[in-house]
Amino acid sequence: GGVGNDPESENILSEFKTSSVLSDSAREKNIFIHGKLADREAVVILEKTPIREDSLDELFMGSKLSLEMRNDIYSTYRLQAPPQLNEIKATVVCPATEKHVKKYQRQESFLVEETGEDYQSITLPYIQKQSFSVQWVHNILEKKAEAEKIVYEDPEPEVGFVLLPDFKWDQKQVDDLYLIAIARQRDIRSLRDLTAEHLPLLQNIFQRGKEAILQRYKLPASKLRVYLHYQPSYYHLHVHFTKLGYEAPGCGVERAHLLADVIQNLQSDSRFYKSRTLYFPLRADDGLLGRFREAGRL
Amino acid sequence: GGVGNDPESENILSEFKTSSVLSDSAREKNIFIHGKLADREAVVILEKTPIREDSLDELFMGSKLSLEMRNDIYSTYRLQAPPQLNEIKATVVCPATEKHVKKYQRQESFLVEETGEDYQSITLPYIQKQSFSVQWVHNILEKKAEAEKIVYEDPEPEVGFVLLPDFKWDQKQVDDLYLIAIARQRDIRSLRDLTAEHLPLLQNIFQRGKEAILQRYKLPASKLRVYLHYQPSYYHLHVHFTKLGYEAPGCGVERAHLLADVIQNLQSDSRFYKSRTLYFPLRADDGLLGRFREAGRL
Repeated sequence: GGVGNDPESENILSEFKTSSVLSDSAREKNIFIHGKLADREAVVILEKTPIREDSLDELFMGSKLSLEMRNDIYSTYRLQAPPQLNEIKATVVCPATEKHVKKYQRQESFLVEETGEDYQSITLPYIQKQSFSVQWVHNILEKKAEAEKIVYEDPEPEVGFVLLPDFKWDQKQVDDLYLIAIARQRDIRSLRDLTAEHLPLLQNIFQRGKEAILQRYKLPASKLRVYLHYQPSYYHLHVHFTKLGYEAPGCGVERAHLLADVIQNLQSDSRFYKSRTLYFPLRADDGLLGRFREAGRL
Repeated sequence: GGVGNDPESENILSEFKTSSVLSDSAREKNIFIHGKLADREAVVILEKTPIREDSLDELFMGSKLSLEMRNDIYSTYRLQAPPQLNEIKATVVCPATEKHVKKYQRQESFLVEETGEDYQSITLPYIQKQSFSVQWVHNILEKKAEAEKIVYEDPEPEVGFVLLPDFKWDQKQVDDLYLIAIARQRDIRSLRDLTAEHLPLLQNIFQRGKEAILQRYKLPASKLRVYLHYQPSYYHLHVHFTKLGYEAPGCGVERAHLLADVIQNLQSDSRFYKSRTLYFPLRADDGLLGRFREAGRL
């Protein structure tokens, strides 16, 4: 904006030129738009705000109502509310790089079928070559970072773990409770590395994790969904604890594996996760998907 | 409202008196409210509308913007839009019965642990006593209802099935594709009844279901999530086909079982689902939950 203008009252978006909609969600009432703001690349994100209980009276009194449909005891209306009671949150990224645009672009996913042999010949070499850094995980285990966030810790080197809130959870309410238990053992990459010898570790995380959450958040085990991801987003064994009823991202059957099932599977077959065919989604831009494609496995 | 008033312009909600919020969703921007409308019980549902791509230019031009935060290339604003570009959908149920109020009341769920013995002693007797009607399923199989909706059918009595859109899917876009395959065999209640003898049926549904969806909707198997529910909502074997990436209700790991996994499990152990401990959520008002409670299993 020009010098001397009040940024509070100036509508910089009035000069925004839309190039394309990157993604949108009718369910979540948001939209991600790529365009130009005064000749610079920009991404604008609009999201409607939640309806606040404390503004209901004012909303009902101050709105304009138009009947759409009436049928027996049911009727629907379009309600036009005073603008200050019905704001939209706008986020502007400017100048935006190609990376930003790609990040917000809706990404298609593909379901991959990975046999035990595929893991050895495709996935494991890919993971090893990428050597994804888990330094930030080691920092947590060594209390070099996020030490103040730790909810519970078991220092035992073989079966021990650290429990702390996932960064997606703001901890303001338990409705969307999301904690992560990180194993102290450093050589377990994922589900594929687990055998019956890890049962004491898994049972310890399951049992003590549930106890710690009951104590700190008053949520009993019957309100928790406890699971691992495959593929995980980082290759150091960790377990997700989320509140049952909260549709946490990644809790779908195509990616999540209940810890209780993992334990049962290893109890009946120590090599279960060596030989089992596993299914998981990969985004179109994931390097691993390219490897499966090259191998003719897609 | 009074006689002679124009129902289009009268704001009947201005006299609505809120008693309590039954439920709300910050994610979906909706709220369900119980209260009184002119001394009659009523439920009012408000939901913000999706942001429409074709109104973006007008929205950017006509809104008032207030800066909230600026950090490097990122800034956030509160945007006040012209009311006609930012409507709220209002649904009124009046007079509302206690049943309506209960229906919209947020229901807590509890995770239940069901051993093979629990199934025999608690769940099976409950299912049998309730004798839930599946007449509507038989009507579909006999083409007495919904015949025009059938996408594919295999008439073979042992391995045959009917594939049709789930009633939740409006079929206007494949983004939220949701189909159901209903087995012709009538004596399979759920996952718990499956043994290795049902593998030809399951493999037939899996294979031909995927082929039919590819042909009709041009969606390959790598874009599908194919699964069973346990507990199912009706006790006649059926399989869910939903689009990968669409967060269909009930696709969470706590209730969904990938058909590919069910097949693998039965291949390695014909009695897998007789002996396996299964986990599933039950709503607080579900009669089966009461049985587990009475049996001291919760």
